[in-house]
Amino acid sequence: MNLMKLADLYEYLQADIQRIEEELERSVTAEHPILRDASVNLLKAGGKRIRPVFVLLAAKFGRYDIEEIKHIAAPLELIHMASLVHDDVIDDSTMRRGRETVKSKYDNKVAMYAGDYIFAKAVEQTANFDDPDIHFTISHAIMDMCIGEIEQIRDQYSWEQNLRMYLRRIKRKTALLIAVSCKLGAMAAGASKKNQRHLYDFGYNVGMAFQITDDILDFEGTEEELGKPAGGDLWQGNVTLPALYAMHHDPEVKQRVQTAFAGTLPDEAGLSELIRDVNESGGISYAKELSRKYLAKAYAALEELPDTQERTSLTNIAHYIGRRSY
Amino acid sequence: MNLMKLADLYEYLQADIQRIEEELERSVTAEHPILRDASVNLLKAGGKRIRPVFVLLAAKFGRYDIEEIKHIAAPLELIHMASLVHDDVIDDSTMRRGRETVKSKYDNKVAMYAGDYIFAKAVEQTANFDDPDIHFTISHAIMDMCIGEIEQIRDQYSWEQNLRMYLRRIKRKTALLIAVSCKLGAMAAGASKKNQRHLYDFGYNVGMAFQITDDILDFEGTEEELGKPAGGDLWQGNVTLPALYAMHHDPEVKQRVQTAFAGTLPDEAGLSELIRDVNESGGISYAKELSRKYLAKAYAALEELPDTQERTSLTNIAHYIGRRSY
Repeated sequence: MNLMKLADLYEYLQADIQRIEEELERSVTAEHPILRDASVNLLKAGGKRIRPVFVLLAAKFGRYDIEEIKHIAAPLELIHMASLVHDDVIDDSTMRRGRETVKSKYDNKVAMYAGDYIFAKAVEQTANFDDPDIHFTISHAIMDMCIGEIEQIRDQYSWEQNLRMYLRRIKRKTALLIAVSCKLGAMAAGASKKNQRHLYDFGYNVGMAFQITDDILDFEGTEEELGKPAGGDLWQGNVTLPALYAMHHDPEVKQRVQTAFAGTLPDEAGLSELIRDVNESGGISYAKELSRKYLAKAYAALEELPDTQERTSLTNIAHYIGRRSY
Repeated sequence: MNLMKLADLYEYLQADIQRIEEELERSVTAEHPILRDASVNLLKAGGKRIRPVFVLLAAKFGRYDIEEIKHIAAPLELIHMASLVHDDVIDDSTMRRGRETVKSKYDNKVAMYAGDYIFAKAVEQTANFDDPDIHFTISHAIMDMCIGEIEQIRDQYSWEQNLRMYLRRIKRKTALLIAVSCKLGAMAAGASKKNQRHLYDFGYNVGMAFQITDDILDFEGTEEELGKPAGGDLWQGNVTLPALYAMHHDPEVKQRVQTAFAGTLPDEAGLSELIRDVNESGGISYAKELSRKYLAKAYAALEELPDTQERTSLTNIAHYIGRRSY
């Protein structure tokens, strides 16, 4: 998703999004030089800030006060950032350079504690909210994300999976934090319980569509578009929907995948063949169809909300996610 | 510190400590089989539960209600447990087995997310407290711990250190969480601000003495007493007080340490020589003296509190820490 194009969809929020950006910068630039270096780089790398945007838009369905709502919007982005930091810990490239591992060991440990620090910072920022439900919801979102990550690890390179396992993983890994961003924005602004629920439903379904699209793009995109080689998910053993479909519907594809990963990892040519197998299996079309179904549910949830400028923005974001090509 | 002997010091709390134990077990046995396995092992491994004990004793200086205070006591032990889990991530032994690293990579990642999960669980349990200060204090304790760990990593194998750096590290790594355990117990039970401060001071000074003693034992203890080889801190590049003193006061010891660690790590015989150097330098006596000074401050803080059964228990625990031999 292109940051600039997405930003056009909620231009009228620009000042408040800038406010969150300052809040994020303030959060990570303080206390410690090593943490500062690690975190500022992460911040500068940008990102769509999709979670804070959902928090702000959802808060517009209640009593919107940027000075209060920033204490929800910034933490949700911090939780996402911390999860990115931890996701990068212990990666392959640094593990396989012999003596270099001592150096990378320290880098990994620092990254781990930097992630912990950012989690704690996120929690700290919400300290002033009275409503215990806000604290429960945030801590549960982190817990679910952890379970999602652990399930993803458990299921890596395991070729006997079903759709239910995949959906449960992406729900925990991605959709719940987006759902919770919408819900918490509404909660913190005192929106009605009914609207909180609709916003949660919207976020959940958009989040599912978002992750399915991400998983499609990993097969469809070029290295230039993705900023990393295509097929990276499969190479890392993450069985996403297109590959799952291909293996389920064509035993020969499954056999070729199992052979390619037996004992070792496939080289570039071998991986390209597998990507072609998946593309030709109909797995991409199936995944696109499922993504569309989730988006339809997201639109339906929006229909239940009052027809405001913010509802239009949320609709546009959902459209955007449906159309995004990288 | 021997669990059974320590338990004698607060036998009258036994039922409530059992209550916390159940709470901890309930926290970690729920939701997910992989998490359950990781966490239950950790729980069964036991530990002194020193943080919950301090929470309970401190709460006795206010309106003590075990059903309320357990929501502080259990989280503080969970935070400690999470830090232990993360401390074990990316250790040397698993990093150096060639192909085995793929397996250990997954184990490490699972351990990392298991630690994250336990942190979030700790935060969740405190959700019901109204007082924002409680939330601030807990999140800050985690943040300080992270900074302490990062500083320890940064300072590893760095032989140019001073006392101030060492003290700051052990404060963040150990003493603050014990101080905060005392303070939060008092806060949650509505003890007076004055008593909260004295309990914090007590915890801080006991925590410093506790860590210094730990660092002494790593040089003095036998492998049998420690459950791990002596000198492990030095071998891992953690410059603790006895070694710091030895290197500062005897340039030849410093030279020998630098030589032993130049380019490679010392073997068992080389490490034994360094341990003997440290023992003969007077570094142990110096560290013992400093530990005694912190304990004296801990006793002084207790003197400011009302003379109750709980104050006696805290005094006894401090005595115990001063005398502990393994």
